[in-house]
Amino acid sequence: MANAALLACDWGTTNLRAWTLDAHGRVVDHKEFDLGVSKLKPGEAARRFEAEVQPAFAAQGLPAILCGMVGSNLGWTVAPYADCPAGLDELARALVAVEAHGTWARIVPGMRSEGLSGNPDVMRGEETQLMGWLAQNPDRCRGRHVVCHPGTHAKWMLVEDGRLARFVTAMTGELFAVLGNHSVLKSDAPADDQEAFAEGLAAAGDGDALAARLFTARARVVGGGKRAESTPSYLSGLLIGSETASVPRLLGLSGEEPVALLGDARLCALYAQALARGGVAHETFDGEAAAVAGLFALYQLGQAA
Amino acid sequence: MANAALLACDWGTTNLRAWTLDAHGRVVDHKEFDLGVSKLKPGEAARRFEAEVQPAFAAQGLPAILCGMVGSNLGWTVAPYADCPAGLDELARALVAVEAHGTWARIVPGMRSEGLSGNPDVMRGEETQLMGWLAQNPDRCRGRHVVCHPGTHAKWMLVEDGRLARFVTAMTGELFAVLGNHSVLKSDAPADDQEAFAEGLAAAGDGDALAARLFTARARVVGGGKRAESTPSYLSGLLIGSETASVPRLLGLSGEEPVALLGDARLCALYAQALARGGVAHETFDGEAAAVAGLFALYQLGQAA
Repeated sequence: MANAALLACDWGTTNLRAWTLDAHGRVVDHKEFDLGVSKLKPGEAARRFEAEVQPAFAAQGLPAILCGMVGSNLGWTVAPYADCPAGLDELARALVAVEAHGTWARIVPGMRSEGLSGNPDVMRGEETQLMGWLAQNPDRCRGRHVVCHPGTHAKWMLVEDGRLARFVTAMTGELFAVLGNHSVLKSDAPADDQEAFAEGLAAAGDGDALAARLFTARARVVGGGKRAESTPSYLSGLLIGSETASVPRLLGLSGEEPVALLGDARLCALYAQALARGGVAHETFDGEAAAVAGLFALYQLGQAA
Repeated sequence: MANAALLACDWGTTNLRAWTLDAHGRVVDHKEFDLGVSKLKPGEAARRFEAEVQPAFAAQGLPAILCGMVGSNLGWTVAPYADCPAGLDELARALVAVEAHGTWARIVPGMRSEGLSGNPDVMRGEETQLMGWLAQNPDRCRGRHVVCHPGTHAKWMLVEDGRLARFVTAMTGELFAVLGNHSVLKSDAPADDQEAFAEGLAAAGDGDALAARLFTARARVVGGGKRAESTPSYLSGLLIGSETASVPRLLGLSGEEPVALLGDARLCALYAQALARGGVAHETFDGEAAAVAGLFALYQLGQAA
């Protein structure tokens, strides 16, 4: 612990992941806290941070940097969205200072993009992973790149010359959860049936008419004799296949551009299968490592500012 | 009651609607029963019919005809699906006899269609409304017609020369319910905001990338300053607009063919707005009257058989 130089936090809706980093950005220690901002009362974030997070690392004296929903009105303080296009420099200039036992502490703003139908799209947390990914892969700071961050609210991000130019959110993970828990497609079975997943990918078509394609998850059991236990895997394939086939076009892309998958390894592997089926080149990057790299890079730039 | 000649029932998942009809098919009496097959124990349908439905009309001596989920494995007895293409004659020949206080009683089979991705699509109940609609509109028994039955599981039906040639199911109503009750789009507000409904229709695009377009329902509130209470109306417009823009193409249609809307008046009016926005000609027909006409026509043909 002696060489910890920074307390870095990805503080989201459902939990808080924190790391101490040394002066070179290497992880010294890591802990998770059941402190998602959705579980906090108004004004509670600062107090819980000082009372639980800093002491857990004996990190009261360390500078701290935090990203995610902690910068929303549910969190510590509102860090106003930075507008696309923006890169590491713009985000670093937009860090919001908070008080934490009197030490340097900053909250990373979320980002806002021109969205579909005239309403802005927003993110909080994924921008930090993206900036970390760019810091880890300087070759991606030139030209145009497509990055997908799978999740409850998946983000498809268009990067141009090292800055996030535009993004769109797809609530694929949430659709999977609500349909699997509350609809006629409800099931307690695990989504671990490879064959049914591939069948779902094939049933996604080009990502149109989802409400009708979803009913095939029912019809294949009721009318086609497939096992009801395979429904979650089929549903997962259908939803992810629909997303990968259609969402890139909303960013003005052809859908054939290579995709960098950035996030949870298990989810990225499912998206990789969907992209492979569509003949789309892809590469997978670890989201947690990118978050750490992004927080460290923002800290360095923010301190210099 | 003296002139009642038939007890006709549309016995679905959530409730049972019953009518006594005279010898010309005119409604004598109508009652609803909270006896949806989803609430029945196995083997209970026959007993409840004899103990509650027949006595409510003093109809023990009348012939009876029943359509809907009563013909499924949750209902009275399984009436095997009739395969597309089929019309009134084929359905009448496939009626399944049951015992009800010793009088003539028949269950209308559901129908099965070649579906998407190699799995059959199925319906129980809508086929009877469709046959009644054809009986009421003999001019539609020639040529090709597109009929849409909105609902929890909406049916898009392709009619060719008086027979149901093919259909596809869209679980639009169920998506509306699970998203409105269990997702980040959850709301208790009524879906009565005309402006937000129209905004949702416009946001549906051509019915692709639904998981991303759904997120605009969130973004317009969080990022666009729209009232959260308008979310159900916006969601309704988005889902119905997505369905009307994309599902007809799954039946090999261009999407520009006129559509007959058959069903609940309130729902049909929403679909009519969506079709009008897409420049598609449409006409609305009462689903309950069509169900009665279909049951009566099937009774007449079934008795003659």
